[in-house]
Amino acid sequence: MTPPPKRLVADWQALMRTFIRPEDDQTHQTLLKYMEQILFRLHDFLKTHVGITEETSLKELGRQFTTTRLCATPVKKLEDVITDLIVDIAPRAVNVHSPYFVGHMTSAIPFFMVHLKSIVAALNQNVVKLETSKVVSVVEKQLLAKIHRLIYGKDDAFYGRHVQNPDTCLGSFTENGTMANITAFWVARNQALKPRQDFAGVEADGIGAAYEAYGIKRCVILVSRRGHYSLRKSAGLLGIGNKNLVAIDTAPDDRIDLDHLKSTIETFQNPSQQTLILAVVGIAGATETGVVDPLSEMAQICAQKQIHFHVDAAWGGPTLMSRKYRALLSGIEKADSVTIDGHKQFYMPMTCGMVYFKSPHIMDAVTYHANYINRMGSVDLGIKSLSGSREANSLILDSALKIMGTQGYALLIEHGIETAQKFAAEIEKRPDFQLITPPTLNILTYRLFPKGLRPAATASEIGQSQGLTKQLNHINRTIQRLQREAGKSFVSRTTLTLSGKDVNNVMVLRSVIMNPMTDLAILNEVLDEQLVIYQTHFDQATGKEK
Amino acid sequence: MTPPPKRLVADWQALMRTFIRPEDDQTHQTLLKYMEQILFRLHDFLKTHVGITEETSLKELGRQFTTTRLCATPVKKLEDVITDLIVDIAPRAVNVHSPYFVGHMTSAIPFFMVHLKSIVAALNQNVVKLETSKVVSVVEKQLLAKIHRLIYGKDDAFYGRHVQNPDTCLGSFTENGTMANITAFWVARNQALKPRQDFAGVEADGIGAAYEAYGIKRCVILVSRRGHYSLRKSAGLLGIGNKNLVAIDTAPDDRIDLDHLKSTIETFQNPSQQTLILAVVGIAGATETGVVDPLSEMAQICAQKQIHFHVDAAWGGPTLMSRKYRALLSGIEKADSVTIDGHKQFYMPMTCGMVYFKSPHIMDAVTYHANYINRMGSVDLGIKSLSGSREANSLILDSALKIMGTQGYALLIEHGIETAQKFAAEIEKRPDFQLITPPTLNILTYRLFPKGLRPAATASEIGQSQGLTKQLNHINRTIQRLQREAGKSFVSRTTLTLSGKDVNNVMVLRSVIMNPMTDLAILNEVLDEQLVIYQTHFDQATGKEK
Repeated sequence: MTPPPKRLVADWQALMRTFIRPEDDQTHQTLLKYMEQILFRLHDFLKTHVGITEETSLKELGRQFTTTRLCATPVKKLEDVITDLIVDIAPRAVNVHSPYFVGHMTSAIPFFMVHLKSIVAALNQNVVKLETSKVVSVVEKQLLAKIHRLIYGKDDAFYGRHVQNPDTCLGSFTENGTMANITAFWVARNQALKPRQDFAGVEADGIGAAYEAYGIKRCVILVSRRGHYSLRKSAGLLGIGNKNLVAIDTAPDDRIDLDHLKSTIETFQNPSQQTLILAVVGIAGATETGVVDPLSEMAQICAQKQIHFHVDAAWGGPTLMSRKYRALLSGIEKADSVTIDGHKQFYMPMTCGMVYFKSPHIMDAVTYHANYINRMGSVDLGIKSLSGSREANSLILDSALKIMGTQGYALLIEHGIETAQKFAAEIEKRPDFQLITPPTLNILTYRLFPKGLRPAATASEIGQSQGLTKQLNHINRTIQRLQREAGKSFVSRTTLTLSGKDVNNVMVLRSVIMNPMTDLAILNEVLDEQLVIYQTHFDQATGKEK
Repeated sequence: MTPPPKRLVADWQALMRTFIRPEDDQTHQTLLKYMEQILFRLHDFLKTHVGITEETSLKELGRQFTTTRLCATPVKKLEDVITDLIVDIAPRAVNVHSPYFVGHMTSAIPFFMVHLKSIVAALNQNVVKLETSKVVSVVEKQLLAKIHRLIYGKDDAFYGRHVQNPDTCLGSFTENGTMANITAFWVARNQALKPRQDFAGVEADGIGAAYEAYGIKRCVILVSRRGHYSLRKSAGLLGIGNKNLVAIDTAPDDRIDLDHLKSTIETFQNPSQQTLILAVVGIAGATETGVVDPLSEMAQICAQKQIHFHVDAAWGGPTLMSRKYRALLSGIEKADSVTIDGHKQFYMPMTCGMVYFKSPHIMDAVTYHANYINRMGSVDLGIKSLSGSREANSLILDSALKIMGTQGYALLIEHGIETAQKFAAEIEKRPDFQLITPPTLNILTYRLFPKGLRPAATASEIGQSQGLTKQLNHINRTIQRLQREAGKSFVSRTTLTLSGKDVNNVMVLRSVIMNPMTDLAILNEVLDEQLVIYQTHFDQATGKEK
């Protein structure tokens, strides 16, 4: 007979038992069981536990999570709450680790990342200041120099001077790429509108006063229309206005149109415009198409025109570790600032962003002190940082780089790029599919364009009548949704406006290939499934829904 | 004989072995050993492994971390890298879990938090969008409603309408309190300078255009001089200018001086000033002194004057879970926005911030869409969020609240407050110490004021000649540093300007009592040690360094 359940109370003794260690053997055993799976058989665990339920509609899901009162007494015993996470929540989460999940920039991570994250959580250092991190701040400064060197490749003397220099700063860890981009523009804004006679600088006096002091009406930031939405958000947040994030046309190869960039710069730099160009952004791995802008040419233009050149390499940055493909990012070493994400192609767990600066002094423009920490002259990393309290993500990345070496990372990245190339070739071979943007890195877009509907297409490769575009958009939107709901495979979708093609707003399927377990056989299955969904739900002669 | 070390290579097979699971039994055993300690005997592990080395000067530490080249091949085997973290890095980190570490807002966390963090890392959901989080986004919305209810206590109908409503938003998770404060001001700014005829709003058109449209010259934010430095940073970042974060005097009880607040508001609201007050900030647990502003009175003033009222409860917010002390925060339910940190008094690992809004619609002012995610009408949490990619911290907090109940949390918080009260009484009893700010919550400041130097003090309790202040500042600064370097105990220090006392820039020792293992006996040891340091390094008759 099982004993009647004890009422759970929160008294000091019970609390301390829960605080310090598993309170009894049963708790210990339960935790051990799950932790053993998570830490030592991660990929099996994910396959068998995560994202395995039938699709529940969001509405239905919402109905199950509606109580809004916090309970005074414990709701369940510790081991039952953990068990719930594993047997109730995990199955309804998304198995982003699956090699069939090729729709977003979130994928499988090495099992040891979970170990590293656990160690960092256990140490619970706060890197905002030395007094709560000590050696960890020193390791972080070293790692910032290492990645800076990967990007900028300055000489030994340079890094000798700056690696542990409390007065200079080669970069900063942030929560994610959004924060890294914000930091880059924050620095660029403060640099462009710095103190001058009778003006204390934009950071102190604000944008209203800055525009007056500099005799301008607005600031703009230029980026190709493939720019990530965080750039718009940054411009809004920083008081520049997101309308002043100006989209430059793309060339037919989907990279920024340099002529349009140059003419736009000239227009804005005409004094009658009273406009200051705060930054030009080059993209190294566009979120939607993976394309890399011509960074060298852009850097040259920016140098000539004295404009801050920022490279958003949140996605593509780690490609620098591949000798085979690093030339794709050539010119990045001329950028004034660079964004790279750790939770993307450094294969770290959620989340880790970074921003790097060519000049070790430029972050002086965002210095903040306080009386109780971050005092003048201290090495507290929080002095020049968008963040306040911050976890020691640097320990994870530093360790992972030691474990895999840049060659290990290169293999992962090369696998992604080359699998994407094979996938593109496969799509081009298939009569019912159409490649829309070929992969520069490991991202490509395509769509189902059933051969039965092809005769309706016009001469142009992609272009067609608006009616057909609408129909194809509907087909692809439906297929993407039904495939996601079926739960085995996942590609994402987006809407592209493509230069040199005579049609806008093309709904495409988007594939991001970073999981080393994803191979062409799996990608073929993904395509096969899409075709079956089409054949099941649409009339093949007319392309209309059955 | 040990076999010669194999050269570590990064080929595909070796990489996959490292990626998926421990590659051999030795690796497994090493990881198991450490993980067993970290997960099941956390507090013993921390005591024996973390922060146990003799103090190394920062300069010396810096010299040990200067190589800046990333290695192409793996530097060490996985288990050796992990071992290094445990035996080389951890000992030189800071044992923030020690009950003698009472200097900052970072402290011991329940052992199960590390389990929860590991599970979240393993699931690796990205809460920016439903497609990479699914049920986790739903749980997060529910938790936001639960904490909103803790703060605002609206009725069942209200939460029924909003808990899972994709069109409304009760709050947002952020990286930390800094980001939560930034979000609150971002929303307040956009709300105050919203679209009107011929003006698309500050978020779209920027601050320059906004000031023109609204006929103003500047915006200001008002907060007592105890405001956290992130408020200044927020004003700088948002383009308002950090000089326009205006410090209001404190009353002798260290809370905001309401008369000064009122007169300042009146001054700024005089049309001739062309100034818009974006927000008034009430502090619920000041970083330096723990003081709580008179929130009810402030809310009333703000309502009358139609000013956004923000409460920075990063520290004090969880006090709402204590029936005994929640009245200290009375008035918080009238705030337009509230910041609370998870990694502070919710005892979560680094880091987790949150911001809550009274109005479920106000976050519409910071809406961002993209074509590939966060599409119009979706429930993607990234639509209204400062962050982009984001880890599922909500799962950790939701679980912890179930495990401990609000009563469990209340016990922790009450222990801190009551231990601080006892500590204050003890300081007042001791002839060589002086209490500077008594604890409202669980933070107090004091200083060593040796009885031998007391006759020199003037009539005022704290006030004294500038010379004596300087001398005491030097003594306390020295004691704080030497105690930290000795490595057993840690209090922090800050410099306060105190109202109603006739002296400024008083160097004080600051104690934050949140560790449930910290008791009066330990705090007495901390004081004893400080006195011994004084007696060892200073001449007791003159207070001069020996």
